[in-house]
Amino acid sequence: MALEPVNLEAPSPSLVSPITSTGDHFVRNHFAVPRLHPDEHRIRVGGAVARKGVVSRAALAAGGLRTIIVTLECAGNGRSTLLPPVEGEPWRAGAVSTAVWTGVPLTDVLDPAGLRDDVSEIVFVGADHGLPAPGRQVIAFARSLPIHVALHPDTILAIEMNGAPIPARHGGPVRLIVPAWYGMASVKWLAAIEASPQPFAGFFQRERYVDDEGRPLGRLAVKSMIVTPAQEELLSPGWIDVTGWAWSGAGGIDRVEVSWHDGKWVQAELGVSLGRWAWRPWRAVLHRAGGVAWLRARATDVSGAVQPEFPRWNRLGYGANGWATRRVQIR
Amino acid sequence: MALEPVNLEAPSPSLVSPITSTGDHFVRNHFAVPRLHPDEHRIRVGGAVARKGVVSRAALAAGGLRTIIVTLECAGNGRSTLLPPVEGEPWRAGAVSTAVWTGVPLTDVLDPAGLRDDVSEIVFVGADHGLPAPGRQVIAFARSLPIHVALHPDTILAIEMNGAPIPARHGGPVRLIVPAWYGMASVKWLAAIEASPQPFAGFFQRERYVDDEGRPLGRLAVKSMIVTPAQEELLSPGWIDVTGWAWSGAGGIDRVEVSWHDGKWVQAELGVSLGRWAWRPWRAVLHRAGGVAWLRARATDVSGAVQPEFPRWNRLGYGANGWATRRVQIR
Repeated sequence: MALEPVNLEAPSPSLVSPITSTGDHFVRNHFAVPRLHPDEHRIRVGGAVARKGVVSRAALAAGGLRTIIVTLECAGNGRSTLLPPVEGEPWRAGAVSTAVWTGVPLTDVLDPAGLRDDVSEIVFVGADHGLPAPGRQVIAFARSLPIHVALHPDTILAIEMNGAPIPARHGGPVRLIVPAWYGMASVKWLAAIEASPQPFAGFFQRERYVDDEGRPLGRLAVKSMIVTPAQEELLSPGWIDVTGWAWSGAGGIDRVEVSWHDGKWVQAELGVSLGRWAWRPWRAVLHRAGGVAWLRARATDVSGAVQPEFPRWNRLGYGANGWATRRVQIR
Repeated sequence: MALEPVNLEAPSPSLVSPITSTGDHFVRNHFAVPRLHPDEHRIRVGGAVARKGVVSRAALAAGGLRTIIVTLECAGNGRSTLLPPVEGEPWRAGAVSTAVWTGVPLTDVLDPAGLRDDVSEIVFVGADHGLPAPGRQVIAFARSLPIHVALHPDTILAIEMNGAPIPARHGGPVRLIVPAWYGMASVKWLAAIEASPQPFAGFFQRERYVDDEGRPLGRLAVKSMIVTPAQEELLSPGWIDVTGWAWSGAGGIDRVEVSWHDGKWVQAELGVSLGRWAWRPWRAVLHRAGGVAWLRARATDVSGAVQPEFPRWNRLGYGANGWATRRVQIR
């Protein structure tokens, strides 16, 4: 038995692959995994709508399915790079993964329900629940999305991950998938969808997954990671192949640059895109004669945002997107 | 133990999903599944090249990986619709599936080998072997591709299927994937790649997977299939939702039309594309008052090719792409 809640990084070797296998995909759960029967589970649709109702996985499966490749990243990914250290899961760089998700646009469920004109947010409630912090009451995991994000055709109620039903650990039978947003928005074990005219004030909206000004987190900050060489890898002198991924909530990467700690930046070659919601592969070849050396990579997205040298420190340790680094030995 | 060679259609319910799960993906094998060690297996690269060599799965995994969504269809899919009947696997409509394949462009292996200027074909040899027909010698499965198809960047040496290593049944550790071509071109358990200045004359190139003029099969003919309603489904009178897939080796679908057996054609709405090598979803809503009725669907691809009412009969029963049909009862 794994300890609950389950929190697992994707193993480093698995990050070589454009699609992370379901078994290797990172996991960030807040409470114990609820075991829901795929045929009997129902999602309530309510709040400020004309017609309340329920929707089943089977009803979604009969809908107009959409398949998208999505890089999900935990908002706390890279938290361990922050100085001074902060509390929270001590994620290194592996709380990011890419999978193929298939589901029905959320609009296909909201449209027939009839949103009231004053709706400003949609709240998503998971079937998982527990104590969010010492001394608090038992709550369900819940997050909201602004209406314009909820209505985007690529915001989907997913029923499949990598071509198979979503395993319980990853939020099955039905998980909300919100491309370009940190993972907390992609609510697992979806149990209720509530249209609301007010900003949602739940624990995970106001006290966690917020910046130091208390604003709820949203889109992924621009970021790159180095996949090869590995940390502390022993390399032969000469031309060294450096590869990795870059992603951003802006929906595209403009360029990635790589350098030695004492050298100048070299522009990496970008690989084939897996679509606007997935990480982009990149590759650069750098020369090095010998010794211990530090590799660094930084990405720039299509909006012009540049990955900073150091992550911006914040109390809860979110969005740590400092330059990717690798220490290697060349001899 | 399954009987060898393994030949399995994708189960009808699995065809509702845009991505077919690895367990449900159709299988067409000619001989027993070879069990190859992923770390020890080597693919020979030879023939008319400057530098012969071998390549391992690990070397491919370290290359510039490319991920594509590909609809594979067995050339014999729908063979049972031919009249008069022909010999061969009596496939109904389920020898078609769609998966996410990750691998390295074949050119990344051929370029360093140095193709001779007179090379016109690349031959691919599988590690599977046996008697192809009574009274013949034991041979390996082998097929060739014209050089321009072999050099296409989306012709890949795949190492992953749906985000995980390719299972033995589906051709792992390394399978050639040739998008837009019938499945016989996507050679499994790849063991050798041979550059050749002559047309390949192997059994599966000259005596099977050929048309009645003896020409090797290539690209997928334009085709649609109806997914819902199911055959013989009992429906209520009124508006009936008809959904399905359409695909073509031309790389895109222009339109799909649906009709009752006595009615006029209605243009279906095309769903989101999964890329040019994958089937395209479609949907149409037709009205029907009652009785037994036949639904029909036909696709037109971007080259203007139209799915014919009846498949063209051929001795070996390949490329059967007559209109999709469904008999339903309405009451």
